[in-house]
Formats: sequence, structure tokens, C-alpha cells
Amino acid sequence: MRVATLKDGTRDGRLAVVRGDGAALAPAEGIARTLQAALDDWDRVEPRLRQLADGLERGRIAGERVDVERLSAPLPRAYEWVDGSAYLNHVRLVRKARGAEPPPTLEIDPLVYQGGSGVLLAPTDPIAVVDERWGVDFEGEVCVILGDVPQGTRALEGGRHVRLVMLANDVTFRNLVPDELAKGFGFFQSKPATAFSPFAATPDELGGAWRDGRVHLRLRVSYRGEIVGDLDAGPEMHFSFLDLLQHVARTRAFTAGTILGSGTVSNADPERGISCLAERRAREMIAAGPGGKPTTPFMQRGDHVAIEMLDESGRSVFGRIEQAVT
Amino acid sequence: MRVATLKDGTRDGRLAVVRGDGAALAPAEGIARTLQAALDDWDRVEPRLRQLADGLERGRIAGERVDVERLSAPLPRAYEWVDGSAYLNHVRLVRKARGAEPPPTLEIDPLVYQGGSGVLLAPTDPIAVVDERWGVDFEGEVCVILGDVPQGTRALEGGRHVRLVMLANDVTFRNLVPDELAKGFGFFQSKPATAFSPFAATPDELGGAWRDGRVHLRLRVSYRGEIVGDLDAGPEMHFSFLDLLQHVARTRAFTAGTILGSGTVSNADPERGISCLAERRAREMIAAGPGGKPTTPFMQRGDHVAIEMLDESGRSVFGRIEQAVT
Repeated sequence: MRVATLKDGTRDGRLAVVRGDGAALAPAEGIARTLQAALDDWDRVEPRLRQLADGLERGRIAGERVDVERLSAPLPRAYEWVDGSAYLNHVRLVRKARGAEPPPTLEIDPLVYQGGSGVLLAPTDPIAVVDERWGVDFEGEVCVILGDVPQGTRALEGGRHVRLVMLANDVTFRNLVPDELAKGFGFFQSKPATAFSPFAATPDELGGAWRDGRVHLRLRVSYRGEIVGDLDAGPEMHFSFLDLLQHVARTRAFTAGTILGSGTVSNADPERGISCLAERRAREMIAAGPGGKPTTPFMQRGDHVAIEMLDESGRSVFGRIEQAVT
Repeated sequence: MRVATLKDGTRDGRLAVVRGDGAALAPAEGIARTLQAALDDWDRVEPRLRQLADGLERGRIAGERVDVERLSAPLPRAYEWVDGSAYLNHVRLVRKARGAEPPPTLEIDPLVYQGGSGVLLAPTDPIAVVDERWGVDFEGEVCVILGDVPQGTRALEGGRHVRLVMLANDVTFRNLVPDELAKGFGFFQSKPATAFSPFAATPDELGGAWRDGRVHLRLRVSYRGEIVGDLDAGPEMHFSFLDLLQHVARTRAFTAGTILGSGTVSNADPERGISCLAERRAREMIAAGPGGKPTTPFMQRGDHVAIEMLDESGRSVFGRIEQAVT
């Protein structure tokens, strides 16, 4: 089952289920007004949403045409947005470029940060930038939406807390990062509002591609109209979503609707391309040798980025994030 | 006006207004079910809540007896919890104790971190600790609840976005901090769920004590039944709430219901005491000279902490946070 949220002038929009071909949707009238309401009461609501989705699939319900411009993020605001950095190639590459060692615990202790979650962007919202010198970058990510997670949840039992899967563009202002991290309290101004894919899918919708707490599909990234990344989101995700879940739940509980992200999808094979400009710039710096400068600039006003994930049949599972810098 | 949230078995509880003497409250039936709903529609809801509070004050409404055990945090879950570190004495003291310099931008660039906001503790909830070796500490703080804040909001215009003021106990697992900050992504496991005061007050309820975006009242902290802090929360708050607001709104917007914290209240005069054990330990380390060890342990199971703020008339403005480690 896939769900989406229709903009309707309210803060949380209106929940809908999406037809298999992604061309039609049916508002979940009388079942749950919003996705957060559905997540708050998932055991009761989910079967009824599936019934609606089934009616839409079989043509018993006509549904409405999907217009991505009318969709907000599946959760236009969320109670938490916790983002990992689970693709270690990304960490190694970026640190190597600036001559820094990765943390010695890189492979055993996940990197995660707490992101802002009160204002989340729709898949086609512009990336509003006050100053291009902030160094605007995209980051293509996979993420999951959780149900209630008790403190102390272990990875082995984490799977049952995963409600939905979707994509994110975790926009980063790269040039604000160094000063911010030097202060020791993590990212803040360097992480503006994150955008999410049009659709969120239940794990079973991914079939065998959802396994070991990872999404074994390709993430396709286009930049300025050109495909710049065709990355395998599966095997190189060193910490699975379940590992990340165990890590973050060590000292506190999470409420339903918490979003947990993978961090920038990254493959060691440069042929696979990039899901963020920082990696291309890192490779350029490494290739240029000590003191080498990157040649790829960050995003400029008017630049477009698109992020989507195709399944084996070529279907865009989560729809397409498509944003331009303004 | 002061508001509180009654536990009623739902995730967000039931909004109530509180009588001036803090002894009675009236549920906001038919006005706004929850505090979040009120904040979402504040301009329409606020006058009606004030009318209800007035009826309670004048005895036209009998109200119910306030039982703090029946109250949750004013917002049992919030869309964001952003915490500053605005009392520079705290930063200087703690860094001096470990022989580190404060960041060179300490006085011009606020330190803030993004906290977890999906599960917030009631004023009398226990501090549930799996392992005492985590180094359990309390942190008495003042915080504000914001209305919608557009990106780019400046300090000068920030005042009109402050809806409510309350207190927090920003529990910290001190011994998890160093490894976590060494990884560069800020706090995560070291910041378990935060507890909040029983009542939240509109700024006008504080009279002249709310000025310059600061609360000019004393924060009273008791630990193990003894008053350990009687701190002036006003003048030494180097960055006001409005300064913090300008800082965090530089690159993104905030939704109504965002909580913004002051960081540990701290005074340079040691006679004023402490609002966190880390400061007492820091003073002990500094007094003991190079390599000196602190003698005060962190909280142990069974230890109690209480945090409240008294106004000029001796009234506990926000009620009392009172927690024990379990």
C-alpha cells in the first residue's frame, strides 16, 4: 500500500491511498483525516486503508488523478526527524577530501543527528535560498516512518515498528557546516527544511527489496537534467534502519510518526555516481592532490534536482522529488 | 493566563486553563481540545481561553482541583524542541573544568542543539535510567513556546511569536556526552526525554518580569530535599529568547508549538548555587587544581530534583517540576 497527503489548506493535509500505477488516489475520508492520525491508531486504521486501496486497485473506486503539485510531504510536519549517516563510503570520502580521519568507531557506532521536523517540504517545493554562498547541496536518502518505539528496542525486534518507507532530499548548506560543527553541538542552520517524496509505501509494497532493514533498490538522482547517480541503496548501507533504530532508542522512546533517515546514499564504485554534490567535490579534491580544489560548484539559483527510486519493473515506487533552487 | 494539559489517556491530553492561585483549573471544552490545537489557531482561540480563565478567576466557574499527578507536560509531544545554551557562565565553567577553551565566537554566535520532541515528560514523571553510570544530571531551564515563525525573523520582531513561557528539566546523561560530541554530530543518546513544568504562562502573566526577551525571576532548584540553586534567570542570559529565535530562524521556518529553551540557568556568583550538578562538579575540579577530581556524584536511583520559579509575591508561576531517578 502507498499513501500520500493532499494539500487542503490545513497544516497536516488530507490522507489518501495511491493506486499501483501511481496515477490515481483516493482520499481516506472517514478512515483517518491525516497520516499522523493514521499512525497514531495504525492497528485499527491500516486494514481499512488497505481495503480502500484494494477498491481503488480493482476499479470499484474511480479515485482522483494524481497531481504531484497538489501533494505535500506525506507528513507535512512530524514529531521527530532523526537522520543517520549509514553509508560509510560517504563519510570516508568527505573526510578524506579534507584530510581528516573518520571517527575510530565509524563501523560500530552509528552517526545520527536530530533534524528539524516542524516544517517539512513537499516534493516539488522550491529550495528557498537567501544566500548562494551558503553552498546549497542536495542529499538523496531513504527513510522510514516509525510506529511507537519503546526505549531499549533492539534491532532484532525493530522491524515491526517500521510503518512506511519514503525518500528524502536532506538539503544541506555545506558552507555553514564547518563553523557549526566546530562549536560541537551539531548541525542547525546548515540543515534547512527537508523535502520528502510524494508517496510513502508500506514495507510489503517493496516485496523482496525490503530485507535486513534495508531497501535493495536503485536510487536515481538527476541534476540539471542529467542522471548523476544510479546508486544501490542496499548492500552499502552499513547500519540498517533496524541498527539505527536500536541506536537511537537506547536512552529514549519515540512516538508514532517519527521519521528515521539513512543519510546520503553512497556507493564506493564511482561509476554509480552521486546523490550529493559534496561527494563529487570530494573526489575532485582527492584527484587534484594535496591542497586540491573542487571544480564542481554547489547549486545555483535555477538548478534542478530530481530523486526517485525504481523497482525491478521500472515503477517509481515513491514518486519523484523534484526541486529547484530559488 | 496559564494553561495546563490534563492526562486523559490520549496522546495529546486535554487543554485546561489554571486559576491564579494554581489550585483550580477548567478544561477548555468546546474551545480547543489540546494545547497544540490552540497554538495552531491562536488568534481565534486565545481570547476564548482568556474568557474562560476570567470566569474561573471570578468564581463564575467552579473548576476542578489541580492535581499535578494528573498533568502531563503542557505539550506531551511537540514538533520541535530547540535548546540553546544562553547562560555563558555555564559554558565557561564546564569547559574550564576540562581545560578546554570556549569557542571564540561564544559571545556572538549562540550555541543551540535540536532535541528530541516526540516524547516529553510530565512534571512528576520519573527519570528512568537503565544504567547509573551514564551520569544522570538535571538541568533547570526556562523555555518559550512559539507561534509560527517565518524564516528570516529578526530578534526585534521576535517578541510577537512568543506564545507561552514554561520551565524544563533537560535531563542529560553526562558520561555519554564526550564520546557523542567527539563524533561531531551533537547530542543524541546523551539527551533523554525532557520534562516540563505543570503550567505554561502567557508572557503578560509575568508582568514586568518578562522583558528584553528574558524572564527576570529566580529559578529555585532543590536536590535531595535541599535548596541548591536560587538563580537569577534574567541578566546573565547572554542571548535572549529573541536572539535565539533570530539565530534558529536564519535558514528555516518553525511551526506553532515549537519549544525554544534557554539552556541551563547559571550565575557567575557561586553563592547563587546551581541548576545542574555538572557546574558543582566543575567548581570542585577547578578548586582541586590540575587533574582535580569532582567529589559530587551524579544522580543515583532515588534522588529527587525539584525546579520551580517564584514571582515577587512568592507564587510558583509555572508550578513545580519534581522528579526522582528510578
